Amino acid sequence: MQFHLNGFKPGDPHVEDAAPHVARHTDTVPAEVDVLIVGCGPAGLTLAAQLAAFPDIHTCIVEQKDGPLQLGQADGIACRTMEMFEAFNFAERVLKEACWINEVTFWKPDEDQPEHIARHGRVQDTEDGLSEFPHVVLNQARVHDFYLELMRNSPSRLEPHYSRRLVDVAVDDADPTHPVTVRVERCDGIHAGKIETIRARYVVGCDGARSNVRRAIGLQLVGDSANQAWGVMDVLAVTDFPDIRYKVAVQSAHGNLLVIPREGGYLVRLYVEMDKLGDEERVASRGITVERLIEVAQGILHPYKLDVKEVPWWSVYEIGQRICARYDDATDGSGKMPRVFIAGDACHTHSPKAGQGMNFSMQDTFNLGWKLASVLRGQCAPGLLDSYSQERQVVAQELIDFDREWAKMFSDPARQGNGDQSDGVDPKEFQKYFEQHGRFTAGMGTHYKASLITGGASHQQLATGFVIGTRFHSAPVVRIADARPMQLGHAGKADGRWRLYAFGGATDHTSDQSGIRALCRYLQESPDSPVRKYTRAGQDMDGVFDVRAIFQQSHHDLSTRSMPALLLPIKGRYGLHDYEKVFCPDLKSGHDIFDLRGIDRERGALVVVRPDQYIAHVLPLGAHQALADFFAGFMLP
Amino acid sequence: MQFHLNGFKPGDPHVEDAAPHVARHTDTVPAEVDVLIVGCGPAGLTLAAQLAAFPDIHTCIVEQKDGPLQLGQADGIACRTMEMFEAFNFAERVLKEACWINEVTFWKPDEDQPEHIARHGRVQDTEDGLSEFPHVVLNQARVHDFYLELMRNSPSRLEPHYSRRLVDVAVDDADPTHPVTVRVERCDGIHAGKIETIRARYVVGCDGARSNVRRAIGLQLVGDSANQAWGVMDVLAVTDFPDIRYKVAVQSAHGNLLVIPREGGYLVRLYVEMDKLGDEERVASRGITVERLIEVAQGILHPYKLDVKEVPWWSVYEIGQRICARYDDATDGSGKMPRVFIAGDACHTHSPKAGQGMNFSMQDTFNLGWKLASVLRGQCAPGLLDSYSQERQVVAQELIDFDREWAKMFSDPARQGNGDQSDGVDPKEFQKYFEQHGRFTAGMGTHYKASLITGGASHQQLATGFVIGTRFHSAPVVRIADARPMQLGHAGKADGRWRLYAFGGATDHTSDQSGIRALCRYLQESPDSPVRKYTRAGQDMDGVFDVRAIFQQSHHDLSTRSMPALLLPIKGRYGLHDYEKVFCPDLKSGHDIFDLRGIDRERGALVVVRPDQYIAHVLPLGAHQALADFFAGFMLP
Repeated sequence: MQFHLNGFKPGDPHVEDAAPHVARHTDTVPAEVDVLIVGCGPAGLTLAAQLAAFPDIHTCIVEQKDGPLQLGQADGIACRTMEMFEAFNFAERVLKEACWINEVTFWKPDEDQPEHIARHGRVQDTEDGLSEFPHVVLNQARVHDFYLELMRNSPSRLEPHYSRRLVDVAVDDADPTHPVTVRVERCDGIHAGKIETIRARYVVGCDGARSNVRRAIGLQLVGDSANQAWGVMDVLAVTDFPDIRYKVAVQSAHGNLLVIPREGGYLVRLYVEMDKLGDEERVASRGITVERLIEVAQGILHPYKLDVKEVPWWSVYEIGQRICARYDDATDGSGKMPRVFIAGDACHTHSPKAGQGMNFSMQDTFNLGWKLASVLRGQCAPGLLDSYSQERQVVAQELIDFDREWAKMFSDPARQGNGDQSDGVDPKEFQKYFEQHGRFTAGMGTHYKASLITGGASHQQLATGFVIGTRFHSAPVVRIADARPMQLGHAGKADGRWRLYAFGGATDHTSDQSGIRALCRYLQESPDSPVRKYTRAGQDMDGVFDVRAIFQQSHHDLSTRSMPALLLPIKGRYGLHDYEKVFCPDLKSGHDIFDLRGIDRERGALVVVRPDQYIAHVLPLGAHQALADFFAGFMLP
Repeated sequence: MQFHLNGFKPGDPHVEDAAPHVARHTDTVPAEVDVLIVGCGPAGLTLAAQLAAFPDIHTCIVEQKDGPLQLGQADGIACRTMEMFEAFNFAERVLKEACWINEVTFWKPDEDQPEHIARHGRVQDTEDGLSEFPHVVLNQARVHDFYLELMRNSPSRLEPHYSRRLVDVAVDDADPTHPVTVRVERCDGIHAGKIETIRARYVVGCDGARSNVRRAIGLQLVGDSANQAWGVMDVLAVTDFPDIRYKVAVQSAHGNLLVIPREGGYLVRLYVEMDKLGDEERVASRGITVERLIEVAQGILHPYKLDVKEVPWWSVYEIGQRICARYDDATDGSGKMPRVFIAGDACHTHSPKAGQGMNFSMQDTFNLGWKLASVLRGQCAPGLLDSYSQERQVVAQELIDFDREWAKMFSDPARQGNGDQSDGVDPKEFQKYFEQHGRFTAGMGTHYKASLITGGASHQQLATGFVIGTRFHSAPVVRIADARPMQLGHAGKADGRWRLYAFGGATDHTSDQSGIRALCRYLQESPDSPVRKYTRAGQDMDGVFDVRAIFQQSHHDLSTRSMPALLLPIKGRYGLHDYEKVFCPDLKSGHDIFDLRGIDRERGALVVVRPDQYIAHVLPLGAHQALADFFAGFMLP
């Protein structure tokens, strides 16, 4: 964490100074805002937390419920989501409270006693090296709490307006500044029934699977259902089932069940296969009770006992995957600018067992947040906003396709031993598929296609482990200014900045003509330099582009003193040096980032990373013009 | 973290339920308490935080200042202190905010240009494997904040009473319940001058080097001074000195200087050697200004520039080490029971450069806290309290002796090259001594002598890496119930419980006659068992003794199902299983705890750990009677 740049300030460094013009949170909603977010779920709060970092953007977030969530449905937190939480600066709190999913075990009918279940395999949950974070499980309400605290402590002091039901959304393209008008109805106590009107530049509907914003812009979820009812319950229970603290897939003679251990060491979530449904039948019609759920779970776990003591939450649902064809009111080929967006469950719903709902939803708005901010702050042209639906709709479709296949495999019975030639799933195949699927459920399946903001692969071979269009994969490094071992990826905070990671080639940093020195000279001095073109007067030198260098040498052979000024920038009211820009491999850990990420040791590489941690481009250190051209494609001087 | 044991509870799991009888914090102090703590510094707050865990103990803490500290003097946080913070459950917050001290560099006059300084060496700050935590630096005020939050969230809801000046302390041995009467004077606004009287069972003076409590019980600090003035300042500065983010010892032709980088990436603390003082002279008489400090620092750092922009805090002091001969009002051989204690700076003061003041002070009251709680809760006889002064005074004396030698060495000039045969210090010797000293400054020099609560070394060879009388040295393990990799030592929370770590021998856990099984049977069934004798009816089975087992096998070869009931205890209102008692080596990390800590693989070992994380005893797994005898020495049935 960096703080005290503009003078010593006592107290919690997480509490930033409120921006001078920021007004106190009032009971009534503002009449005019830049962005109105509808819904305080994971998607809405991720967006609100991102925009709260920019007090020059006036954001409002409304929610129909009357206060913060106490008990959420979602619980799985993918590795990729943890990486994003690190950018939002609260990953360590989730790590501490959450239950870590370390291994998954697989159970099937016992070969000798098919009425009993027996363990037939176990695999690591997350493959080694996939992320510096584990896959964890934590009640969604706590994730909300962390976002809400972050918003309260931000320079915007952003707080939700609760008890607001969306009435309607109208877009008037003729209005040059605030084309969207939203009406909400208060539903709290003496104010109930009062209609409030908010005019906004942009509106984002994060209002769930029954999104009213989606309906207002004429979009709908399309998909299919497997006509299969499932039950889900969180339980405090006494059991002799030995794997109750593992993630477990049970395929029994009485149906299937999934065990997800929960935070705190005692709570467990059980997903239980229930009735087959008729073609047009909805699960609600079955009148399934929690007693029935428990009874079916007990049958599946036989011969193990399950004595349920408390059920804090339960539900029944039918399996199905549905998705919207687009995520905004404009990318229909009409050439209009998008003004209204939808995100999260409003755009796509999955089987909850895959643990993707919350994770994918947050990644939606992490993608949208920096784009909205860049456009509203005049850094990028509004055309950038088209890329939100283009990017997120495609990857959601890919996930859903993969998920459908996996869900089918999960529902098939396991083959019995080597001789079994039935239609069932070979446990080895199942395990292999699980590992492939693991990348998707870990959130690493997202791979954005080449676009205005995602470069082509012509120089990908310079950094084979930083695949363009995928998330920046962190690795251990040592900071040269203080020899601190750390994760390079943790330099990337959710502050709307682009990161340029310059990996030194063979002649760096001994030669003045070396790639990194020449790049820094170009960025600092050339009139074409993106740093010069897009950084406003009065901003810190790294206000838009955060340039970091990684050399191959040990930190003992490097010195901050001999670094270019761009790597030891002068910042803030006192002109203090920022010492946190230069790194070297953490050789003591045994993991050299140049090897781990396939960096060309001779030529080095420049890895361009978007504000949402995705790799936008890989270029040679000397490709100055190509770098300038890339940013000229969507940034405004 | 474990929670939800007695039912699902929404919200932050750090906020415990308030105990039913706990009253709201009031503006006036209570008339009668179990423990009165005087002073809200690190010693006082560590004690208050420890006692706050026990709502059946009525604790009050008073402080002369009018509110929480905003800007503290102390900053160094030793590895050992981080281990304690982990027990108090906020280590991760300190790790995040603090500056990590990774390496130390040494500078001396340049051989060719003695007016210039040049780097002559660098060493790792903390030797590998000394602790799972780094040495860090963070403003003491933030440490206070973490303690205060923990106290507010505890079942006691403990909060300090500020603006209270100690007037006097009187002990009336004839009073069987509350023999100490303390009078405090309010110094806030309209209440100023009002005298309040508090009757207490025990009083602990954590009121600093000028302790009034110490004076009241007739003790004094004794020691010497090196007649050397030093200045210290926290600065925000621009400099070209390349090691400004390292801990640096500079020996120049113009005197000595120590650089301590601070949290936030910009702030730096400088200790600057100032004037030689006369024999009886106090530093105050010199009228040293901050401008003079800066000037001297600039001279020492020549040829590097130091442009100071802001000085949030500065001070001057004379080097000296002083200590009290005892830490209570009774261990003078009179046979009285101690009723008044002193801790922290009230007992010992050091050279601040060693970074020991805050660390040693907190360890004082971490030592005292569980003892007071055990006596007040009727678990131990009051004689236990004698061990506080006996243990802490001795280790403070050892530290001071070591520190004096080191301080002298630090003040000597460095020898110039191989040919120099002067009285100066050989840089290689200096470096070697630094590494030895490192254990003391890391807080690992503390080694309690054999006593009622520290066993003899006759079985030390069973676990050579767990030295009796030193802190329990954590190591990586895997929890078998969920395959989670973790630190074994982090099982030890500041909850007043004893920990029995049973390391399995060769026949564990295959044989029913094995050491761990036999031990668990004894502890559960024998009438002599400490678990049966000292655990109250209605308490959880692990309420006094927290038994943990570590087997040599992989977790794939072990199962919670086959564990003795003591290792899968039934707890809380629902009788839920606690799955967090059994571990195995973390072989994937490459560090087998049996090798790391020298456990006898044939016989195993039982390591008995005190509530303050110090190793009380090492015994054979089968030494049931010796275990019973040990606890019978100081515990009450």
